[in-house]
Amino acid sequence: MNDVPARWDVRMRGFPSRTSVDQVSRLIRELARPLSAERVGLGEAVGRVLAGEIAAPVAVPGFARAAMDGYALRGEETFGASDYNPLVFDLVGEAMPGRPFPGVVKRGQAVRIMTGAPVPPGADAVVMAEYAREVGGGTAVGVTDAVPPGRHVGQVGEDIQAGQALLGPGRVLRPQDVGVLASVGIATVPVVRRPRIRLVITGDELLPPGAVPGGARIVDSNSVMLEGLVRRDGGIALHDPIVPDRRAAVEDAIRDPRGDMLLVSGGSSVGAEDHAPLVVAEQGELLVHGVAIRPSSPAGLGRLGDRLVFLLPGNPVSCLCAYDFFAGPAVRLLGGRCPEWPHRQVRAPLARKIASAVGRVDYVRVRLTEAGVEPLAISGASILSSTIRADGFVIVSQDSEGCAPGEEVLVYLYE
Amino acid sequence: MNDVPARWDVRMRGFPSRTSVDQVSRLIRELARPLSAERVGLGEAVGRVLAGEIAAPVAVPGFARAAMDGYALRGEETFGASDYNPLVFDLVGEAMPGRPFPGVVKRGQAVRIMTGAPVPPGADAVVMAEYAREVGGGTAVGVTDAVPPGRHVGQVGEDIQAGQALLGPGRVLRPQDVGVLASVGIATVPVVRRPRIRLVITGDELLPPGAVPGGARIVDSNSVMLEGLVRRDGGIALHDPIVPDRRAAVEDAIRDPRGDMLLVSGGSSVGAEDHAPLVVAEQGELLVHGVAIRPSSPAGLGRLGDRLVFLLPGNPVSCLCAYDFFAGPAVRLLGGRCPEWPHRQVRAPLARKIASAVGRVDYVRVRLTEAGVEPLAISGASILSSTIRADGFVIVSQDSEGCAPGEEVLVYLYE
Repeated sequence: MNDVPARWDVRMRGFPSRTSVDQVSRLIRELARPLSAERVGLGEAVGRVLAGEIAAPVAVPGFARAAMDGYALRGEETFGASDYNPLVFDLVGEAMPGRPFPGVVKRGQAVRIMTGAPVPPGADAVVMAEYAREVGGGTAVGVTDAVPPGRHVGQVGEDIQAGQALLGPGRVLRPQDVGVLASVGIATVPVVRRPRIRLVITGDELLPPGAVPGGARIVDSNSVMLEGLVRRDGGIALHDPIVPDRRAAVEDAIRDPRGDMLLVSGGSSVGAEDHAPLVVAEQGELLVHGVAIRPSSPAGLGRLGDRLVFLLPGNPVSCLCAYDFFAGPAVRLLGGRCPEWPHRQVRAPLARKIASAVGRVDYVRVRLTEAGVEPLAISGASILSSTIRADGFVIVSQDSEGCAPGEEVLVYLYE
Repeated sequence: MNDVPARWDVRMRGFPSRTSVDQVSRLIRELARPLSAERVGLGEAVGRVLAGEIAAPVAVPGFARAAMDGYALRGEETFGASDYNPLVFDLVGEAMPGRPFPGVVKRGQAVRIMTGAPVPPGADAVVMAEYAREVGGGTAVGVTDAVPPGRHVGQVGEDIQAGQALLGPGRVLRPQDVGVLASVGIATVPVVRRPRIRLVITGDELLPPGAVPGGARIVDSNSVMLEGLVRRDGGIALHDPIVPDRRAAVEDAIRDPRGDMLLVSGGSSVGAEDHAPLVVAEQGELLVHGVAIRPSSPAGLGRLGDRLVFLLPGNPVSCLCAYDFFAGPAVRLLGGRCPEWPHRQVRAPLARKIASAVGRVDYVRVRLTEAGVEPLAISGASILSSTIRADGFVIVSQDSEGCAPGEEVLVYLYE
């Protein structure tokens, strides 16, 4: 019984050993480094990762500005003003935002001023409109409040000083950050380049998304799923036509230099048609092949020059699991982001037990019900439907034999 | 003291009364209805909101398929097989995914089969490769395991049945949902149209984002911030040039029929240059003007035909606050999404007290420090810088006089 054909034999081989999830995660954190920077305009900056330190080129406010609607004047001249003793000033003009009073406020004079308008030279305080009343057809104003110099005036640089550090590298730019950058006169910012992730989808049985399945052929679902996941993680997916299960075709696809990282879906196992691991080992370095995790144990990780290659099983749930455990953190790290789980998390008690095995991490799809966290009973058959029925997943660590009913577990929610 | 010029007088008027945040929120939930549907391809479907029920047009699997690598044969013929009694079958061919065995498996025959390949007619079970050994140069296979009919065979429709309901309206499509849609042969899906939100930025003092501030002019920061917020909420921002503080210009901008909703930034208060509320009242209906909230009390809400118009204060923090409390939920509702806060939330004790007043909601920017939740000491001056220093905000309800040190508060995190 020794004359087995070589190309079939490989299927019998199995994985020599499986790497632990922790080891793979450590390796990814070592190898996946932020890409170079590029400059983008403010309109594209929200959500991007800052690649350098940003200091304010100008002060905010850039001029002394009114903090209230009212009348600008010399504060010391209001001393003694009260309801019983209104002091009257000549009203010599108006200062509006963007339309300053063109002159100087002299002794005995006041200028109508609106919040945000420049306080005219000569004036040093604002009396709130509530404590002032115009008289003489708007030629004068009676003031009933005494204001010290500086009152209701925002001084130059009071909010942000010129040269002040505003935001540092690694910051994921929020909408209001970009607002502040606009305010200090910045037009473009250096951000980490978005990682371009090339999807290599292999399988003779696959039709492209949008096709109708028929005969022995099924439709590739991993490319559209992976594209959505890559986008969630700040990357850009590059698509190519489906690659047939032929060594030369897989080789061409993997050697193609486009993309900062490769995700190979399908053909990742140890079967006769599983060319990808062999090609990666030959063209570069196969660092991991076989991981102690269920599902997605045939996942792998390699390197071609300085590009990482992830081998994702073709089975959609395994592909999702392997992406989220391994490829996702790498995409985020390439983009300068935090590698941790991006999912919202809730804690809740288990409604039914989860069985696992020591030495293996389990990725268990669950539903959140009134009774608690329900692990979905997944036979091999209900693979696809489970991914849409689940609200999220629970991770059972490799040191655990599972979780008992009533035990509180951490659920990572699918968005 | 009665001869005040009319255009100035309005500034003295103040708000007749302020609407409570709850009332405004209820009004928005009543008025903001999901937009019509449009069809998009799967490549654009992730993150969109499904506008109808989706049923599976075909079954998954669509053919009986191998669930394991091994040998397809007639299960009943393996009865009696064991390590001590291997039963030998003629090996007549191979079935691979996408490349079915072209014949029928007869009595005494077996076919090599790979996971996912169609189980050939005649065969009804798969013996795992581990329990089989090829002999005679690959012309026969010895089987050491007895498998009942159906073993390791995924039956037609076992995962998803043809006609089965998959996803319902309102579902925000996840990456794996779109994968499942591809698998069942769906090419396009009906989704709620993305709301187009027109930004009307008013102010004579404003330069466009990217400009360098100078003289009495400052740079508009609200448009880039609002664009980021609208995108976060699933909408598309439409930009126009900055609108000067002239009644006719504001009128033209507000009457422009483009967009499903309007956000007017600046000129929302009761001052002489605050044209927006008057224009909305004249052209449509001004439903709310003045809200019992700090900051952003001059916020307003109106209607022009069936389009909602939000009046947002020009001050950047007030604008952010008014967007997040009022406009954001409306954008999400128009897009068929959940109006609730999209922010991640954490609970932590207050490091210092927050003072508030009964009858008013407070939006308090805070930092998360080792000492707990630190409210940022906001003088009028540190408005802009506070938005980037803050990690998130705390909402003090209108029934509360504030929060004491040590009290646990809910922090909404800026992403």
